[in-house]
Amino acid sequence: MDYSADSAFIRQIHDYTLTESHCYDWLRHLTKDVGARLSGSPEAAAAVEYSRQLMESLGLDTVWLQPVMVPHWVRGGEEVVRIVESFEGGNFDLPATSLGNSVGTGPEGLRAEVISVQTLEEVEKLGRARVEGKIVFFDRPFDQTEYYTFRAYGKAVDQRVWGPSKAAEYGAVAVLVRSMTNSTDDVPHTGTLVYVEDKPKIPALAVSTRAADLLRRQLKQGKVEVYIRNHCKMLEPKLSYNVIGEIRGSEKPDEIIAVGGHLDSWDVGEGAHDDGAGCVQSMQVLATLKQLGYRPRRTLRCV
Amino acid sequence: MDYSADSAFIRQIHDYTLTESHCYDWLRHLTKDVGARLSGSPEAAAAVEYSRQLMESLGLDTVWLQPVMVPHWVRGGEEVVRIVESFEGGNFDLPATSLGNSVGTGPEGLRAEVISVQTLEEVEKLGRARVEGKIVFFDRPFDQTEYYTFRAYGKAVDQRVWGPSKAAEYGAVAVLVRSMTNSTDDVPHTGTLVYVEDKPKIPALAVSTRAADLLRRQLKQGKVEVYIRNHCKMLEPKLSYNVIGEIRGSEKPDEIIAVGGHLDSWDVGEGAHDDGAGCVQSMQVLATLKQLGYRPRRTLRCV
Repeated sequence: MDYSADSAFIRQIHDYTLTESHCYDWLRHLTKDVGARLSGSPEAAAAVEYSRQLMESLGLDTVWLQPVMVPHWVRGGEEVVRIVESFEGGNFDLPATSLGNSVGTGPEGLRAEVISVQTLEEVEKLGRARVEGKIVFFDRPFDQTEYYTFRAYGKAVDQRVWGPSKAAEYGAVAVLVRSMTNSTDDVPHTGTLVYVEDKPKIPALAVSTRAADLLRRQLKQGKVEVYIRNHCKMLEPKLSYNVIGEIRGSEKPDEIIAVGGHLDSWDVGEGAHDDGAGCVQSMQVLATLKQLGYRPRRTLRCV
Repeated sequence: MDYSADSAFIRQIHDYTLTESHCYDWLRHLTKDVGARLSGSPEAAAAVEYSRQLMESLGLDTVWLQPVMVPHWVRGGEEVVRIVESFEGGNFDLPATSLGNSVGTGPEGLRAEVISVQTLEEVEKLGRARVEGKIVFFDRPFDQTEYYTFRAYGKAVDQRVWGPSKAAEYGAVAVLVRSMTNSTDDVPHTGTLVYVEDKPKIPALAVSTRAADLLRRQLKQGKVEVYIRNHCKMLEPKLSYNVIGEIRGSEKPDEIIAVGGHLDSWDVGEGAHDDGAGCVQSMQVLATLKQLGYRPRRTLRCV
C-alpha cells in the first residue's frame, strides 16, 4: 500500500495546526475571561454556552447539547487549618484547601488532636481506640524515585480519595491530607474525595507539602492540636450539558471516533491544564479537519 | 550476555539522582547567589571558584583548573532603540538588547532610516545604493511549522550571527534583528554576532518580537527613522579557567569519556538553562557515580 498521500495530509494537518489554529485564543477565553468552572457554577454554564457557539462557528455537520445532571458542590469561603498552641510558639495557620465534595465544619469549626498515618491500613490497625475523636493526618509523600510523577500521584492518591471515609469509620472528626504534589511549596492541591455510603461524612482538607512537613516536625515533638474551619456544602445536583459536535462519516456514519475533554475545573485555579487545554485541542481537531476539507469515512465526534 | 547487573545499577543511579542529588541546590547558588556570568566578569570568576570547590568536595581523583583566555565584552548600560516621529504618534522606545560582541554607538547614538530585509541575500541584492547610511532590520521570523523549535532557531539565526557584517559591507550604519524566539513577547533575546574580518563593525541589537511586528507595521506605512544608542565595548581578553574533575579509569585511564557544560552565561538573565543546568548535571554525573562506588574502566571527566 502507498501511504504517501496520508503522509502529505498529516503534514498539512501539522502545518495548519501550528500556524493557523485558534485554540490558544479559545483557551485564553476559557481560562481568563470565564475563569474557574466548578461543576454547577455560573462559570461552568458560561463555558458550555461558549463551547456551543464556538462549535457552531466551525461549520460542523451537527452541534447539540446533551443534558446531564452534575454535582453542585460549593466551597463557601476560605478555610482555616490552625495549629493551636504549637511548640514553635503560639497559633499558626497552615495553607489548606478543602477537598472536593467535602462537608464543612460549620461556622464554629472544630478542634482536636492530630494523629499521623501513612496508609489506610494504618488507620485500621490503630483502631477506634486511637482514632476516635481525632483528626487523622494522611502524610504519605510522593515516591520521588518515580520518574513519571503521575505514577507517584497514583501511588499516593488513595489517601485523599478514600482516607476521609476510612478515618470516619473509626470515629475521626476530620481528615488532613498531604497535598498531592511532588513540589515542596505552600500551594495546597485540591481534588476529589469519595464518601463511602453508610460511613459518616467528616470534613477533609489538603494542607500544602510545606505545611505537611511542618506538621510532621511538630508531631515528632509531642501532642499537636489543630483547629479546622471550612464552609463547604453539597447542594442539589444541577442541570448541565455535554457540548457535542460532529463531522458525519461518509461510509460508516454510525461508527464514531470521539475526542474530548472536560469543561469543568476546580475553583482554585483557572483550569488551563485540567482540562481547558484538552477541550480546546479536541475542538481544534475537528476545526482543522473541517478547514482542510477532510471527509472522514467514520463519524468524528468532539465531546 | 547478561545485562541484569547493569540494569540494576542503572536503577540505582536513577533512584539516587532523584532522591539524593544536590544539583538543584548547586544550580540555585549559581543562578541566584552568583547570578549572570558573562565571560570575563567577576561573576564568571566566582562561578569558576565555586565549581572548583564543589568538585573538590566530591572526592574525585583529580580536580584542576585549565587556564584559558576568554573574550571580555561589556554591555555598558541600557540600550535605546527609539522610533522617531512615528506614524502612530511621537517617539517611542522598543524593547531591545545589544547582541553579544556588538560595538557601541558612543554616547551620542545614531539616527537613520530603517530598511527591512528577510535574508542576507536580500542585502546583497539591494546593494550599496539602497543600504548605505541605513539601519538594516533583519525581520525573518521563526518557521512556525517546525515542531522542534530549535530547528526554527537554526533556520533564522544566520541573520543575527552574520547580518551585522553583511549589512556593514554595503554601508549600513547599524543592524536591528528580530529576536530569536518563537514567542510573541517584549523580551528581546540576545546572543552572539560574529564580525567578519576586514568588514566595518557596526552596532547590532535585537528587538523583541512584538517590537519587530510593530516596526514592520510602521514600515508598511512609509519611511521610518530610528534612533539607537548603546554603550558596548570589547575589552582585552581575560584569563579564566576550565574547571576539570575526573574519576580515573581502572583499565584504560587514557581513554576519556567527558561530560560538560559552560559556566558563563548572558548578562540579561541568570543562566539557568543556558547553561547552569548543564554544568550542575555534569557534576552530578560524577558525584552520583562516585557516591555509588562505581569504578569505571575508562576515565570519566567533567569539564
